Amino acid sequence: MTFALRPTRRLYAHLSTSNFVQCRTIKKEHTLKNGGWERVIPAFRSVCGEDGVSLGEAVREQHGRDESVHRCRPPDVVVWPRSVEEVSALAKICHHHHLHIIPFGTGTGLEGGVGALKGGVCFSLRNMDRVLDLHQEDFDVSVEPGVTRKGLNSYLRDTGLWFPVDPGADASLCGMAATSASGTNAVRYGTMRENVLNLEVVLADGSIIHTAGRGRRPRKTSAGYNLTNLFVGSEGTLGVITKTTLRLYGVPEAMVSAVCTFPSVQAAVDSTVQVLQTGVPIARIEFLDDVMIDACNSFNSLSYPVAPTLFLEFHGTEKSLEEQVTVTEEITQANGGSDFSWARDAETRGRLWKARHDAWYAALALRPGCKAYSTDVCVPLSRLPQIIVETKEDLMLNGLTGPIAGHVGDGNFHCIMVMDPNDQDEVIRVHEFTERLASSVSLML
Amino acid sequence: MTFALRPTRRLYAHLSTSNFVQCRTIKKEHTLKNGGWERVIPAFRSVCGEDGVSLGEAVREQHGRDESVHRCRPPDVVVWPRSVEEVSALAKICHHHHLHIIPFGTGTGLEGGVGALKGGVCFSLRNMDRVLDLHQEDFDVSVEPGVTRKGLNSYLRDTGLWFPVDPGADASLCGMAATSASGTNAVRYGTMRENVLNLEVVLADGSIIHTAGRGRRPRKTSAGYNLTNLFVGSEGTLGVITKTTLRLYGVPEAMVSAVCTFPSVQAAVDSTVQVLQTGVPIARIEFLDDVMIDACNSFNSLSYPVAPTLFLEFHGTEKSLEEQVTVTEEITQANGGSDFSWARDAETRGRLWKARHDAWYAALALRPGCKAYSTDVCVPLSRLPQIIVETKEDLMLNGLTGPIAGHVGDGNFHCIMVMDPNDQDEVIRVHEFTERLASSVSLML
Repeated sequence: MTFALRPTRRLYAHLSTSNFVQCRTIKKEHTLKNGGWERVIPAFRSVCGEDGVSLGEAVREQHGRDESVHRCRPPDVVVWPRSVEEVSALAKICHHHHLHIIPFGTGTGLEGGVGALKGGVCFSLRNMDRVLDLHQEDFDVSVEPGVTRKGLNSYLRDTGLWFPVDPGADASLCGMAATSASGTNAVRYGTMRENVLNLEVVLADGSIIHTAGRGRRPRKTSAGYNLTNLFVGSEGTLGVITKTTLRLYGVPEAMVSAVCTFPSVQAAVDSTVQVLQTGVPIARIEFLDDVMIDACNSFNSLSYPVAPTLFLEFHGTEKSLEEQVTVTEEITQANGGSDFSWARDAETRGRLWKARHDAWYAALALRPGCKAYSTDVCVPLSRLPQIIVETKEDLMLNGLTGPIAGHVGDGNFHCIMVMDPNDQDEVIRVHEFTERLASSVSLML
Repeated sequence: MTFALRPTRRLYAHLSTSNFVQCRTIKKEHTLKNGGWERVIPAFRSVCGEDGVSLGEAVREQHGRDESVHRCRPPDVVVWPRSVEEVSALAKICHHHHLHIIPFGTGTGLEGGVGALKGGVCFSLRNMDRVLDLHQEDFDVSVEPGVTRKGLNSYLRDTGLWFPVDPGADASLCGMAATSASGTNAVRYGTMRENVLNLEVVLADGSIIHTAGRGRRPRKTSAGYNLTNLFVGSEGTLGVITKTTLRLYGVPEAMVSAVCTFPSVQAAVDSTVQVLQTGVPIARIEFLDDVMIDACNSFNSLSYPVAPTLFLEFHGTEKSLEEQVTVTEEITQANGGSDFSWARDAETRGRLWKARHDAWYAALALRPGCKAYSTDVCVPLSRLPQIIVETKEDLMLNGLTGPIAGHVGDGNFHCIMVMDPNDQDEVIRVHEFTERLASSVSLML
């Protein structure tokens, strides 16, 4: 289950920062009719070369969908700029011709954000793939949109540093900034919101801005408006992110993962709430319900007990791990949890977290030929036990397949709705379920 | 030395969020001429009562300055709304008559932000002083603008929770949000940016918005634009903050403070950088140069060695404190630091941090009758030793009094420039010094 890259909604070419508020309400169709492209395509080619522009159907279709259930909405043309200057030049052409811009990273999103609902020009940014300006002593680095999360972490391998935000998919880091991605490590390290220090952005009119100033990378600033966090999570509607400066962390001296099984959902979630309230600086605390664990067991040839489960991970010095684990075990045992099943070495830990991150595919494998759609809601921590229990009851009552996995440390959980898109009745029941879930959540806020 | 409340620049009544970018460039004078007030004042009175409006000179002067050197710029009138509805009603009147709005919290700022440079209406928010919606189990609380940092922490005394952001002054928490305040705890707990979950804001036209939705308080959200962080640090230019929802923390099991003296600035700052690079979750690490320590000794009747000094504080469990302290001592000793002088109980710790937070007044006491002006720059951590050493040389060379104190864990430090405002030559030398400092810093970014 990944929430990495949904970097795009349409960026209407006439927008500038000063009227961004209107951008979501633009309704008019602005795609060129057949004839118009005759002038535009050569202009695109003059910017990024013959190979940098494609009108091919297969290529367009590949850029009109992500990994979600949402149907393919291909753009009219795909371009591959190689530098911020090329992005800017292309944006100017789009601006002049009133064309929508859709930035595209790795296409690993699950929200359908890359769909060209009203046509337009897809900017595939994979050719801009440099890691720039690593400052080890200041714990920061800048990356272009073609650099993925795993790519950056391999680049950093020998430095003792890493970038922890981990939505599962090997997403583009600039895409992760655009979508305000989070994931299993957010409870300790925060989301992209807390870890993006600066952005280089090309606005709709082609102008290039640096949200926290050119080349600035102090950890703290209160000068001027916080534009960085306006662009983080703006999903491509305010501009094309062409460079992201990220905060890095020292690789912890020690890491250990554990799995713990509970007699009830309530017991697992209560344990989570208590662990956090005690102030244990836990690195990951992920909930999987019995249905999800069963799916993970089948998909990854594992044999965890089929019951509400927590996957946990602790980061720190050897000494601090000891204390974190002791306190956590006391809490889980008081809630009727099983003994911890340990994953100490990197390989075993890797296998454990792969199982968690494969949840999306494991869920899909429950009903071959079906499609998946994930809900994504967040409630105050104290309301989490109640909402998960109620949600499971609703799923059962309506005969829906919706294994639950959640970043419970943040009050955030997902039901991966696996459904037959050709079964109209099931589609309607899923739709009604998500509506009920959303209104239950809004009552808790 | 406090950086709490500089909540205001003028909020031009015709602004709305959609054209905020222009707000800083408005030049026209829009204060009513004498006659105009005859219609406006009764309208204000009908909103917040006879007692809620004042044209008195003393009152206006009191609201035209903060604790900085900047000269008093009184507003035309001061109003005291008692609720968000009254703020909204007053803003509508100002909007209609093209009057500037200047929100006022506790007036503890050091940046002159409350000055009514072009006249206008000061909204004193001290009568809105309720603590609302404490959710202990979710670690959040909402406060009105009259609630100060210390006020909230006394309110929380018996809950096991606290709000750690501490700029020194007992500032309004909404003012701290407006100015993106930080302080001595930022290295561990972040600044207001990381700790504001939601804001209720009255825009210039009187409309009331909630930046993260009405009543929403999950820890994580990626829905919609991050408007919360657009208003945090906007210094009153985008709207009047009438309620702030804050993230709370569990009071640590144990806290201990220490003082450590160094043979050189370089040694003290190198120690800071190394402590942070080792990943010690230190709660405070504050640098004071020899001049600053000398001033603190005199002002607070203390007897610290007059040398470059670090004030440190560790938060955590008893066990984790032990480890944090051991690692930190190893580093400071390797850099030639003295043995730690300890402050364990709350009273001794309180005295130590009072000395640090009184730095502004201690600096002023160095030259009775003088005024103080503080620089406020932030550099990447790796550049900190060099810039502090160079800055001290510059101060000496130019015969300026500028004790240095810094939140060095964030790369942020202040020179408190103590000067005779009637000595034109000195004023010019201070001005030139700050220009040089700013350009040295910008070269490091």
